[in-house]
Amino acid sequence: MRVRLSDVAAMADVSSATASMVLNGKAGAIRPDTIDRVLVAAEALGYRPNALARSLRSQQSHTIGFLSDDVVTTPYAGAMILGAQEVADKHGFALLLANVDSDQEASRHSLEALLDRQVDAVICATMYHRIIEVPAQLTNSPAVLLNARSDDNSVTAVVPDDYAGAEAAMEHLVAMGHRRIGFINDRAGNRRPGFIIDQTSPPAAVEREQAYHDVLRRHGIDRDDTLQTRAPSDPTGGRVAATALLDRPDRPTALFCYNDRMAAGAYVAARHLGLAIPEDLSVVGFDNQVLIAEAIDPPLTTVQLPHLEMGRWAMEQALTLLDENAEPRVRRMPCPLVERESVAPPNHPSADT
Amino acid sequence: MRVRLSDVAAMADVSSATASMVLNGKAGAIRPDTIDRVLVAAEALGYRPNALARSLRSQQSHTIGFLSDDVVTTPYAGAMILGAQEVADKHGFALLLANVDSDQEASRHSLEALLDRQVDAVICATMYHRIIEVPAQLTNSPAVLLNARSDDNSVTAVVPDDYAGAEAAMEHLVAMGHRRIGFINDRAGNRRPGFIIDQTSPPAAVEREQAYHDVLRRHGIDRDDTLQTRAPSDPTGGRVAATALLDRPDRPTALFCYNDRMAAGAYVAARHLGLAIPEDLSVVGFDNQVLIAEAIDPPLTTVQLPHLEMGRWAMEQALTLLDENAEPRVRRMPCPLVERESVAPPNHPSADT
Repeated sequence: MRVRLSDVAAMADVSSATASMVLNGKAGAIRPDTIDRVLVAAEALGYRPNALARSLRSQQSHTIGFLSDDVVTTPYAGAMILGAQEVADKHGFALLLANVDSDQEASRHSLEALLDRQVDAVICATMYHRIIEVPAQLTNSPAVLLNARSDDNSVTAVVPDDYAGAEAAMEHLVAMGHRRIGFINDRAGNRRPGFIIDQTSPPAAVEREQAYHDVLRRHGIDRDDTLQTRAPSDPTGGRVAATALLDRPDRPTALFCYNDRMAAGAYVAARHLGLAIPEDLSVVGFDNQVLIAEAIDPPLTTVQLPHLEMGRWAMEQALTLLDENAEPRVRRMPCPLVERESVAPPNHPSADT
Repeated sequence: MRVRLSDVAAMADVSSATASMVLNGKAGAIRPDTIDRVLVAAEALGYRPNALARSLRSQQSHTIGFLSDDVVTTPYAGAMILGAQEVADKHGFALLLANVDSDQEASRHSLEALLDRQVDAVICATMYHRIIEVPAQLTNSPAVLLNARSDDNSVTAVVPDDYAGAEAAMEHLVAMGHRRIGFINDRAGNRRPGFIIDQTSPPAAVEREQAYHDVLRRHGIDRDDTLQTRAPSDPTGGRVAATALLDRPDRPTALFCYNDRMAAGAYVAARHLGLAIPEDLSVVGFDNQVLIAEAIDPPLTTVQLPHLEMGRWAMEQALTLLDENAEPRVRRMPCPLVERESVAPPNHPSADT
C-alpha cells in the first residue's frame, strides 16, 4: 500500500495543500513548526526517501535505477539493459545501475545506494525468469520487475512466455512428423539464495515441461517418461543427458533441449553416436544465444528469449508509473521460434513405432 | 534502527526543518556554523546523506558515467561493466550508463545527458579494442578510456595486450611442434563511423598479425603467405577461410583464428574435410567467449580478453583521478592463454615439410 500525500497531511494535522507545499519546497510562508510536523509525518510514514526528496526539489531526477542480480554477467541478458536504455534515452532519462548478489547485506547496501540517488523509479531485473519476493525498500517507489514477477502479481512485471515458446518448438517438431521427441530439462537445484528470493520452482523449467506434455497429448502421442530427463544446463549436462536418451534402439528422432548450451552438448552426443543432424536427429534449443546457435553445425533452430523487448517494455511501464498511479500489470512477452537448420522430418525407423 | 532526520536535528540542536533544509541543499539563508553542526551530526549518526547534501560538502555526486558504444550488446563486454561496478560499489559510487551509437547527434545528446547529471568522472568504453578520438566534451572531466586509447595517449586508458596474447597462442602451437601454422585474421572494413572515431586500423588485427610473424621468425620458420588469410569475423567467415587453407595437400597442421566465432567455423570446415581436432588439426581462438569455447567439440583453446580486469582497472583509475591530477597512464592488460582440448602435437606428414 503506497503512502499518499493525504496520509501525511492527516498525521501532521494539516491540509493536503499545506503538506504538498512543504513537500514540494514551497514552504516559504509556512511556520517552521508546521514544516517540522509535515516532515516528521512524512518520515514516519515512509513517504521518503523518493517522494520527499523529489518533491523537495520539485522536479524529477530523470534517472531510473536498474537493479539486477548479476545481469551483466549473462550475455543474452545484456539486451535487457539495452532495451531499457533505448527507451529511457528517448525520453531523456538515464539508467543508474546497481547489482545485487547472494550477499544479502551487500545487496541491501547497493539498493539503498540507488534509492539515495533519488531515482524516479526502479527496474528490478533478474538473470533468469524468476518468481521473487519484492525487496521491501521498493514498495514505496514506482517499480517494475523485469524477467521476474512477484508471487501475487502485485507489482508490474514482464516475463518471457516460456510456455508458448516451448509450445511453438514442440508444435514445429510434431508438424515435421516427429512423434518420439525427447526432452532434456534443466535440473533445478542450482539456484542461489539471495536478496531477491525465489519463491517457487524456476518457471522456465516448469512451463516448458508443461508445454512438452500438452503438445504431445494434443496430438495423441502417448507419454513415455523414458524420453524425458534433467541435467545441469550446460554443454556437458546436455551431452550426458542426450547420450542416455539416444544410445538405445528406440531412440527419439528429435530432442527439445532446455537451452542452447545443452543443445550444443546434444550435438556432441549425436556425433559420437554417429547420428547426423538433422538427418538422423532433429534438435531444438531455447534462448537463441546467437553466439552458440550460429557457431554449431548445423546452425540451431531455437526459441528466442525476448530480452530486448522485455527491457523496452519495462522501461515504458516505469516511465508511465511516474505520471499515473496505474494498476499493476503482468505482461508475458512472446518467445518466437527461430528456424535454422537443425530440424528435418524423421527418417529413422523408430519414427514409425 | 534507521537514523531519522529528527535525530540529526536534536544532536545539532536545530529544528528538523533547518536540518532538512541543510541536508537537502536549501541552506542559503542558514548560518555557516549551523550548516556545519548539522552536517557533523548527520555524519556522526550515520544518517544516509542524499546526493545534494553530499555535493554540498564534497562537490561530488558519487556517480561515474559509463559511456559505451553498444557495449551491452556484446556478450563478453558485459564483464567490463561488471568489473567497473564492483570497484565503484566498494567505494560507494554508482554507475550511470549511456550508450553512443553511429548517430553522432544522438550520441552527443547521450553524453551531454550524462554530464548534465554531474557525474564525477566518465569511463568511455568501446566494444572492440580501438584507437579513438576523445569526444571534446570529455576533455574537461576526469575520464578513462576502456578497451580504447587515444592516438597520442593523452588520456588514461586500458587496452588488452593483443600482441602478447597472440604471442602466447603462437608460442604454444610452436612448443607443441607445429611449424605450418595458418592464421585467419579479421577482414577490416566492417567498422562503422560514429561519435567515437577510429583513427587507425583495428589494433587487435594489427597486433595479432605482428605477433604471428614475430613468433614464426623467432623460431626460424619461413614465412609462407599462402597460410595467412582474412575473412569476416563470424562462423561463416571462419569456415570459408579455413576450407581454403585446409583443402590442399600441404595444409597447415594448426590454425590460429582471430576470434572464437571464426574458430567455430574452422571446426566445421575441418569436419567436412574429414580432419579430426586436435589429432589432424590444432585450433586456437581468441576472446575466450566461454559460451562458444565450451559448446564446441572439442572445447577450444583460446586467449582471454580481460574485460573484467580492464573494467576494474578503469574504475580504479577514474576514482583516483577524482583525488589527484595524475599523469595519463596507458595500461596494456595481459591476455592469458586458456588451454582446453583443441591443441595437440601434429601428426600429419605435412608437419615434416
